[in-house]
Amino acid sequence: MAANTFGEIFRITTFGESHGKAIGVIIDGCPAGLLIDEHLIHYDLQRRRPGQSRIVTQRKEAEDFEILSGVFEGKSTGTPICLVIPNTDQKSGDYSHIAEVFRPSHADFTYHAKYGHRDHTGGGRSSARETAARVAAGAVAKMLLSAHGIQVTAYVSQVGPVCIPVEAEINLSTIEQNPVRCPHPETAELMESLIMEVRKMGDTIGGMVSCTITGCPAGLGAPVFDKLHADLGKAMLSINAVKGFEYGSGFKCVSMKGSEHNDAFTNEAGRISTLTNHSGGIQGGISNGMPIQFNVAFKPVATIVAAQDTVDIRGDKAIAEGKGRHDPCVVPRAVPIVEAMAALVIADHLLRNRSSKL
Amino acid sequence: MAANTFGEIFRITTFGESHGKAIGVIIDGCPAGLLIDEHLIHYDLQRRRPGQSRIVTQRKEAEDFEILSGVFEGKSTGTPICLVIPNTDQKSGDYSHIAEVFRPSHADFTYHAKYGHRDHTGGGRSSARETAARVAAGAVAKMLLSAHGIQVTAYVSQVGPVCIPVEAEINLSTIEQNPVRCPHPETAELMESLIMEVRKMGDTIGGMVSCTITGCPAGLGAPVFDKLHADLGKAMLSINAVKGFEYGSGFKCVSMKGSEHNDAFTNEAGRISTLTNHSGGIQGGISNGMPIQFNVAFKPVATIVAAQDTVDIRGDKAIAEGKGRHDPCVVPRAVPIVEAMAALVIADHLLRNRSSKL
Amino acid sequence: MAANTFGEIFRITTFGESHGKAIGVIIDGCPAGLLIDEHLIHYDLQRRRPGQSRIVTQRKEAEDFEILSGVFEGKSTGTPICLVIPNTDQKSGDYSHIAEVFRPSHADFTYHAKYGHRDHTGGGRSSARETAARVAAGAVAKMLLSAHGIQVTAYVSQVGPVCIPVEAEINLSTIEQNPVRCPHPETAELMESLIMEVRKMGDTIGGMVSCTITGCPAGLGAPVFDKLHADLGKAMLSINAVKGFEYGSGFKCVSMKGSEHNDAFTNEAGRISTLTNHSGGIQGGISNGMPIQFNVAFKPVATIVAAQDTVDIRGDKAIAEGKGRHDPCVVPRAVPIVEAMAALVIADHLLRNRSSKL
Amino acid sequence: MAANTFGEIFRITTFGESHGKAIGVIIDGCPAGLLIDEHLIHYDLQRRRPGQSRIVTQRKEAEDFEILSGVFEGKSTGTPICLVIPNTDQKSGDYSHIAEVFRPSHADFTYHAKYGHRDHTGGGRSSARETAARVAAGAVAKMLLSAHGIQVTAYVSQVGPVCIPVEAEINLSTIEQNPVRCPHPETAELMESLIMEVRKMGDTIGGMVSCTITGCPAGLGAPVFDKLHADLGKAMLSINAVKGFEYGSGFKCVSMKGSEHNDAFTNEAGRISTLTNHSGGIQGGISNGMPIQFNVAFKPVATIVAAQDTVDIRGDKAIAEGKGRHDPCVVPRAVPIVEAMAALVIADHLLRNRSSKL
Repeated sequence: MAANTFGEIFRITTFGESHGKAIGVIIDGCPAGLLIDEHLIHYDLQRRRPGQSRIVTQRKEAEDFEILSGVFEGKSTGTPICLVIPNTDQKSGDYSHIAEVFRPSHADFTYHAKYGHRDHTGGGRSSARETAARVAAGAVAKMLLSAHGIQVTAYVSQVGPVCIPVEAEINLSTIEQNPVRCPHPETAELMESLIMEVRKMGDTIGGMVSCTITGCPAGLGAPVFDKLHADLGKAMLSINAVKGFEYGSGFKCVSMKGSEHNDAFTNEAGRISTLTNHSGGIQGGISNGMPIQFNVAFKPVATIVAAQDTVDIRGDKAIAEGKGRHDPCVVPRAVPIVEAMAALVIADHLLRNRSSKL
Repeated sequence: MAANTFGEIFRITTFGESHGKAIGVIIDGCPAGLLIDEHLIHYDLQRRRPGQSRIVTQRKEAEDFEILSGVFEGKSTGTPICLVIPNTDQKSGDYSHIAEVFRPSHADFTYHAKYGHRDHTGGGRSSARETAARVAAGAVAKMLLSAHGIQVTAYVSQVGPVCIPVEAEINLSTIEQNPVRCPHPETAELMESLIMEVRKMGDTIGGMVSCTITGCPAGLGAPVFDKLHADLGKAMLSINAVKGFEYGSGFKCVSMKGSEHNDAFTNEAGRISTLTNHSGGIQGGISNGMPIQFNVAFKPVATIVAAQDTVDIRGDKAIAEGKGRHDPCVVPRAVPIVEAMAALVIADHLLRNRSSKL
Repeated sequence: MAANTFGEIFRITTFGESHGKAIGVIIDGCPAGLLIDEHLIHYDLQRRRPGQSRIVTQRKEAEDFEILSGVFEGKSTGTPICLVIPNTDQKSGDYSHIAEVFRPSHADFTYHAKYGHRDHTGGGRSSARETAARVAAGAVAKMLLSAHGIQVTAYVSQVGPVCIPVEAEINLSTIEQNPVRCPHPETAELMESLIMEVRKMGDTIGGMVSCTITGCPAGLGAPVFDKLHADLGKAMLSINAVKGFEYGSGFKCVSMKGSEHNDAFTNEAGRISTLTNHSGGIQGGISNGMPIQFNVAFKPVATIVAAQDTVDIRGDKAIAEGKGRHDPCVVPRAVPIVEAMAALVIADHLLRNRSSKL
Repeated sequence: MAANTFGEIFRITTFGESHGKAIGVIIDGCPAGLLIDEHLIHYDLQRRRPGQSRIVTQRKEAEDFEILSGVFEGKSTGTPICLVIPNTDQKSGDYSHIAEVFRPSHADFTYHAKYGHRDHTGGGRSSARETAARVAAGAVAKMLLSAHGIQVTAYVSQVGPVCIPVEAEINLSTIEQNPVRCPHPETAELMESLIMEVRKMGDTIGGMVSCTITGCPAGLGAPVFDKLHADLGKAMLSINAVKGFEYGSGFKCVSMKGSEHNDAFTNEAGRISTLTNHSGGIQGGISNGMPIQFNVAFKPVATIVAAQDTVDIRGDKAIAEGKGRHDPCVVPRAVPIVEAMAALVIADHLLRNRSSKL
């Protein structure tokens, strides 16, 4: 069933396999008249790109893209924007060894169970290569948000056991100053060391990405099923390797009492806000004007150097050998993906909200 | 925008305010020929019902329901099943004090910002009363799953700081034997004491619900956006008071290495399974035949007895006084809601999967 | 699959069988703040009601309705409006003879083929009784349109071979002055005589309903698949007994040349309009500000008095006997249904258009 | 709002402007394992191609296409199939004269009213060029139907006043033997002469396409809104230049009596069928196993050689001059488009029907 589409009004449909001819996206429902700055698309694609630093995979992917439709004289026309990113580094040979062997904690087995016939080269459709299309679409969504004063910023808050100290002050403008994309320089260094160490061992490690959305007006989100955080949660959980999502107080709320968790309202110079933000900017599924804050947990990449026991397509015992060029830790490159998916959700709800009142 | 609908093929649309005439649900897309056992609907509604034990709100809600359509001679006909639950305990007077005051961490302010005109009695549409309609629909989804050998079971795993010990063996058949719905009797007692204590203080406390789905065949879930865990996550996050969702290893994965996180495949008597289940039964967004496992974090109920500082509809300082009859801890009653939403997701993907192969 | 929902933003879901407990509709996506005048709903339901005149079926249907949700202090709240119409005249006995016999040109055979298990009493879900729910929802859509200066008016333009003369001037304000709902009194009389004659013979006759929408701004409709006339066409074709839809010049365009068919633009007092209206108010799928005009063809009702040869559920020869109380001609009662479906389409596109520009 | 998507399970999204870089389509929801024969896609694109005969436009369009994804080793994988058709004949200069002038009965004015900012070259998104993407997708749908024994065949039944005589026997295998695509050779010649004559005059003429679908099982179509003929009607009305749709008896039903219109059921060798087929193969919105038959009315192409009075973007009087290379009659090239859209509807309902029974 058609499941490659995301969003209601601002809606994207992605296509493409890791080692096919190209991947890409159709953005349907972008309002007419939006300035489309291709540099901003390039910028975010570069942030997601393999090979951008020594702590990410050295695999090469072209991130050149072409807009085939929907933009005229630099502005959106209201018709579908199709953006294509050709695949140039298609070393299918690298993957021939996995045609018949189910790699542990990959999607090989489940795709085989679901579809019977699958493109096994490079993970095919299950590869995180697909997220480049999301990042490109997300860049367009960010342009729409920017025109409405809304800013989406993600960063790495934890790698393995190394996390930004609770009491630390972080400065979001420093995110891009280190390859980990952590806005706390001391922690970033520890993270980088850990990643290099893990890589040396041929292993991988998990991590966490945090995201803040500022400038979002009160009123976005739609009860009851399309609560703003429910759509954000689905968006994040649809990213490869994500295992958990929490917003505001998140899982910490389990141990809290109502008297400490409630956010008192206040009126600052005519603008109603809250003194604390355990709500994470969302109450009853609708934004309240405070910064929207959430965390996303990423598992360690499943591809490791050590050989692993597994079974093959016939159910026979087999060995999965770790080849290919993969990330020791996925979160530095996941930052623009989290931003993109968040921007798509907010852009969609921004347009949906145009029909909430007479 | 229409946001009261959930699901693609097996699809529900709920309606109704807390203190309106009735709440209810239309189930569209239930295959014809399913035996509809009204006792099972009653059973789950009773588990969600206020006043069922001393640790939940003593507010009274009628949970009588009527099926208006879609069932003929005890079986589904393939046409929409409309199920209505009248509201009988409509003490609107109880809520007159909140017509103009924004209660902290409730949806009063955000609904006001979004819609301007809102039904403030009893929380209106933002009240958890709406989840009774989900539970009724979920009971029908469970009947469909049961016909396919799939079982959905949720339970309380944590209340405040009290959680089931990691090393404890739990027996899911004991869930209904205590009012907390915790399958570990010793822990259940501690939880119950804590809830009673919190209630006495006029306060509330958070909690966690865990869920296991067994008998689910490999192949359910649809890449790339409608990953099975993404749809489960959205379903859970759409429940009132939920702040976080994780599946399989969840947030613990952040600190793990690939070599310890990967689930090795094995072949047991012709059935491919995994030795561990950090994947939580889902790989690449598609079920792998192992038990599906996830956790849901619920915040402490926002209504407390103590008076709280806030603002009113005009932005003036005001006091929110905690009246009404509310739950000291929401998780015991949330168990059937979590099950219902999970059943709806699995039922939908079960039908969607009928079109995955030629 | 879920097919009882219509519309994208202003969206309705109907439920109910002819002889079940009730029929009804959920309207989701109606903007908050709309005045809901229940008299207007009553008025349109009366126009659709059986027994309203001597030329329609004398079957009795209660058209009392109840709004269960979504309206507070007389105005919409932005949450789902559920409206229920109980069935009171449930003479199921009348229909026992058709439980196993497929009536010619009814939906008995096809529902049986599709669902296996079906409610055969009174046609069940395939009965035109379901359209009462559409009329009620359409009345709410009309209120939204009225608030934007848009008016939807349908009338009977042909019954059997009797049609309004091409050269006749018609006055839409006279529609309700005769039981046929034809705005040309002389033709109305001929139509009424024909219907009475057909009824006496125990037969039925086809007819045509025409519809005009005025005050619709330029810009509604969404290329490429959701062209305004494509959505209007689907809406009309989804009404029971409809066999054809045409707009503007319609089927006459087949014989026309471009030089005579093209509508020249002109500027009247600052408002761009066209000198002719072969386009029927829609160009390229988008309204152009001229009156939207279309025709809908209704077949003769399938239930007739004469016994008819057919087969039964086992494929054996059988006789379908024409019992029950049915309409000799459906179009007088179809007028409010056509209006309702048209209003739903325009209301939806009115809201959709709020996102077409930055 | 996203309106470039069609279908529920077998779902297409098209993109591209007439004179942009490319047009194309994503097919999402095609089951895995379907043999994709690119020759069949080529074949249908050739039938839609300009310049294929002397009675169609001599404009040149490349119809080479490339499949970018979703097909592996010749078979569908269940993931999105993206197919791109580059535009090579982009003589934008040809259209500079219409940048500011609203051509009569084109979409210039309405797109301007809706979007403000539009691609005016060659009609942009409103050009029938977009239908090439539909034809390509329809060819894939036909492959799916063919695997289920279903055949979709369209042909020209009328051009201007020239139509196939009612009593004529037609042989659908002769359709491709004349450039008009009329299965009655004598009528085809008259049609061809008429088209050549109209072309000489610099004018254009309307026409009708008829379509027959055989081998369709009983049970396709989904009450109440997604009736099979309602979805076919929307599909046809979404094709450029279509003004009307009728199925079975169509508009003729208006003058018929129930006693003559009803289709008597019979049992031929164990298969229930009807003696007549006024129902056009669809009863109650669901296929009954008889051939599905419908007609589609196409208006005369709006582009003519004669200069026409109109207004420009400022509302000032202007002259629209007929340049470009356009069709004197659209129906010969519309035949594969009608087939494509019909195939998409049937393919979608074929898959939807997999969930109608337990």
